[in-house]
Amino acid sequence: MELLEARIRQDGRVLSPDILKVDSFLNQQLDVQLFLEMAKEWRRLFADAGVNKLLTIEAGGIGLAAVTGLVFGCPVVFAKKSRSRNMAGGVYAAEVHSFTHGTVCTAQVSETYLSASDRLLLIDDFLANGAALDGLLSIAAQAGASVAGAGIAVEKAFQGGGDRIRARGVRVEALARIASMSPETGIRFC
Amino acid sequence: MELLEARIRQDGRVLSPDILKVDSFLNQQLDVQLFLEMAKEWRRLFADAGVNKLLTIEAGGIGLAAVTGLVFGCPVVFAKKSRSRNMAGGVYAAEVHSFTHGTVCTAQVSETYLSASDRLLLIDDFLANGAALDGLLSIAAQAGASVAGAGIAVEKAFQGGGDRIRARGVRVEALARIASMSPETGIRFC
Repeated sequence: MELLEARIRQDGRVLSPDILKVDSFLNQQLDVQLFLEMAKEWRRLFADAGVNKLLTIEAGGIGLAAVTGLVFGCPVVFAKKSRSRNMAGGVYAAEVHSFTHGTVCTAQVSETYLSASDRLLLIDDFLANGAALDGLLSIAAQAGASVAGAGIAVEKAFQGGGDRIRARGVRVEALARIASMSPETGIRFC
Repeated sequence: MELLEARIRQDGRVLSPDILKVDSFLNQQLDVQLFLEMAKEWRRLFADAGVNKLLTIEAGGIGLAAVTGLVFGCPVVFAKKSRSRNMAGGVYAAEVHSFTHGTVCTAQVSETYLSASDRLLLIDDFLANGAALDGLLSIAAQAGASVAGAGIAVEKAFQGGGDRIRARGVRVEALARIASMSPETGIRFC
């Protein structure tokens, strides 16, 4: 999506070959007008996919998913992250490893909000190694919900998570796909 | 706001005289169409307030603020919660006590995203003792930003935070104000 790629070129900062900072419009300050255009693009891509609910994970995905929910006309459910492995009853849960932070957390969603009658679009801001998306796919599977696909803002394609998850048969639509990046040479998109 | 009060009556669950569960539309599953109506109401209330940015706190406020940002046509900044008191440089930070969870966290916003030229509307899902709102007000003050007011979804008026903060001269517009509640007798709105 040209609009997002241009914005990343303009305002993104490559801190290392692995770390792209887009806090100024995607992560801490949210350019919700940009989110609206991204949501419309996912709506175009998944127009006939029968989506009735969006599933995302806190905190990065929530703003993006809320705006996308408006465009799709459907509710948003987000997985809460907890450091504890002790689950309360009545939740779907999956462990998510953060390679960036070197931590493990448990993503969980109350069983009340997902069921076998749901057709989900998964939304997240970043896709790198795919750990968060793996967690959401696991939660969807536990609920028996079907997954129309995943709408990702920025895929760091060189980290391989996207291709691995596509190879499982999941449709992944990333609006900006980064082939490589470095502080010296900048960002190259796929 | 009648629409929100009716929804709380219909789908809220009073677990104790202090705890209202509204996970099904406000907290974990987000009814973003309802959020849009709430945002329009804040837009009506703060029409002439000169708001150029929204400030909220993760995770409960993000979805609500994102939709509200669309209606106001302005960006959203959210304070991140951290358990650590060790601040990185370059952030505005405030301690926030959670009475519900018995914990203390640090809310922080990069200095890059708030300045003395900002006129803020603070957004949050709940206002009870006022600790989160105190934190956002402190962060706004550190940035030298002015505060047009606070848009709150649900105020538990009997816990006193709203009145305390109004007495400081802050305009607080809560769309549903609960005077009292109990599992036996239900909810009484102000």
